[in-house]
Amino acid sequence: MRAIPANREFQMSNVRYDVLGFGNAIVDVIARADDDFLVKQEMRKGGMSLIDEARAQAIYDAMGPAVEISGGSAANTIVGVAGFGGRAAFVGKVKDDELGGVFAHDIRAAGVAFDTPPAADGPSTARCYIMVTPDGERTMNTFLGAAQDLHPNDVDADTVAASGIIYLEGYLWDPPHAKEAFRKAAKIAHDAKRQVALTLSDAFCVGRYRAEFLDLIRSGTVDLVFANESELLSLYEAKDFDAAAAALRNDTKLAVVTRSEKGCVVVSKSGNEAVPAAPIKQMVDATGAGDLFAAGFLFGLARGQDHKTAARLGALAAAEVIQHIGARPEVSLKTLAQQNGLPV
Amino acid sequence: MRAIPANREFQMSNVRYDVLGFGNAIVDVIARADDDFLVKQEMRKGGMSLIDEARAQAIYDAMGPAVEISGGSAANTIVGVAGFGGRAAFVGKVKDDELGGVFAHDIRAAGVAFDTPPAADGPSTARCYIMVTPDGERTMNTFLGAAQDLHPNDVDADTVAASGIIYLEGYLWDPPHAKEAFRKAAKIAHDAKRQVALTLSDAFCVGRYRAEFLDLIRSGTVDLVFANESELLSLYEAKDFDAAAAALRNDTKLAVVTRSEKGCVVVSKSGNEAVPAAPIKQMVDATGAGDLFAAGFLFGLARGQDHKTAARLGALAAAEVIQHIGARPEVSLKTLAQQNGLPV
Repeated sequence: MRAIPANREFQMSNVRYDVLGFGNAIVDVIARADDDFLVKQEMRKGGMSLIDEARAQAIYDAMGPAVEISGGSAANTIVGVAGFGGRAAFVGKVKDDELGGVFAHDIRAAGVAFDTPPAADGPSTARCYIMVTPDGERTMNTFLGAAQDLHPNDVDADTVAASGIIYLEGYLWDPPHAKEAFRKAAKIAHDAKRQVALTLSDAFCVGRYRAEFLDLIRSGTVDLVFANESELLSLYEAKDFDAAAAALRNDTKLAVVTRSEKGCVVVSKSGNEAVPAAPIKQMVDATGAGDLFAAGFLFGLARGQDHKTAARLGALAAAEVIQHIGARPEVSLKTLAQQNGLPV
Repeated sequence: MRAIPANREFQMSNVRYDVLGFGNAIVDVIARADDDFLVKQEMRKGGMSLIDEARAQAIYDAMGPAVEISGGSAANTIVGVAGFGGRAAFVGKVKDDELGGVFAHDIRAAGVAFDTPPAADGPSTARCYIMVTPDGERTMNTFLGAAQDLHPNDVDADTVAASGIIYLEGYLWDPPHAKEAFRKAAKIAHDAKRQVALTLSDAFCVGRYRAEFLDLIRSGTVDLVFANESELLSLYEAKDFDAAAAALRNDTKLAVVTRSEKGCVVVSKSGNEAVPAAPIKQMVDATGAGDLFAAGFLFGLARGQDHKTAARLGALAAAEVIQHIGARPEVSLKTLAQQNGLPV
């Protein structure tokens, strides 16, 4: 279990993409809701629940007028990388239906290479029904649909080998074949001396796959771990942040733990480094905060910035995305970084 | 041509709906764009152009990441009426596809009765590709799709007769059979002593159907006309606002002309009455301004308010909708009116 290649060397030369993301390709269906609605619908506030098609229909029938915006955790991150001016690509499965067309249009229009062929039949493109409560917190219900059909065949070895960092979402452990795609991509990446990053995605996702995630981290299958506070505590079944962070430092070479308005902590062998959150005027919708933090950090890392600068880029992108509805940036992150004196 | 029934009496008793709207059922696909994009795409800034499916695809391929929000001019108005607490219903045609489901969900979730059966085959649900420039102006390109299949059979006589005001959009003159549905509904409404309102929709729409619109107004087929300044000028092929307003006063018993930040003018036999616009912090997206003005005015009229109060309700709703992306209100218009001391 403890087989981290101690001196694994990465190379960022000859890259076609700074970051290549693998994730569930999802269209978000976002509506405002009050806390009573969550109680009535027995939704776990702030979390992500997997739902079947019947439950998806029942939730949709009950929820208020909605807005459709492309989402998906790793997809949001990759769009953020492109927004900073990074070269970015995404692998994920939609169906050849209207919402699949929306997802493909939006990610390509953001400047991301997206070549995964859509499924011709089977379930429809994945949807995430997101309730945004007045405090800006989001509660998510995901119908995985076509995203379940991501398969190792969808991993193009040349593309992986030509990407500086590959980024994988923990949510990929939910669809049956996607984890095989994940492992295949990680192997190709390491053979090509590329870095592999993983986000733990959600505390309950960690609960479902704790042993496997710990093994991915401890075996060195992943080189960089993103987690928020509750995911970290869930991973180590701990109640104390410092103890969990110490355990994480022991298990991996590099991790970033985001702590909402408290900023983040970069965890590495050289110690913990705290970086504050970027200021905001008003929290409107928390959806995508972690995704966009990862975007900034990955972009910084890919461009050779130190961890603190990378974390500041992440904090800036997270602050942008929580001040409006939807998990995709509404302004140029490159311009935003320049205005804030950060290197892009 | 000049056959206005001089003393037509309306009754608002025994109504099931305060307002029943007829319009094109459309999902808006909204993206930010700069003026250069409009020039390159040869789009008429601020206007609405009808496009075919091939052009729709070309525009979608060229435009940036987008958001999907239910729209449609009269549909936006009717949602606004419901937002004030009015009893509201809508007639319009979608296809039985994913975006048709989105339209139906959103309008019903807003509290509007919507019972028009979706088309089982034929073109897909209508979409309007909207470019929002940095000045907040919107430029629209509409693929009418299934909306073209609105038919007189879709007009339920009992529902029309039980609605205090029926509201029709000028855009209905574009689909071939919808104008027949429009005329059928107007006849039923008048037979039941109900009011018929028409919005002129768009200056170029007026250009396409000027003679027919003038006939509708002069013959008394419509009792209340909504127009903005450019539509009014187009209707009378005039350059001078006062002259056009005088012509309109001569042709109809009641009209409201909206003038953007200059507010509106209520035109009636007793003279012109100006009502100022409601203050805004920032113009974000002009889409739906006229639609929501009509919502407030119609709601006020249906509830027996005087013209000035009705216009103030309209101005308030218009101010709400231009301060965010999308043409549907994001807050309760009823609460907003109460906060502003207006009767609801």
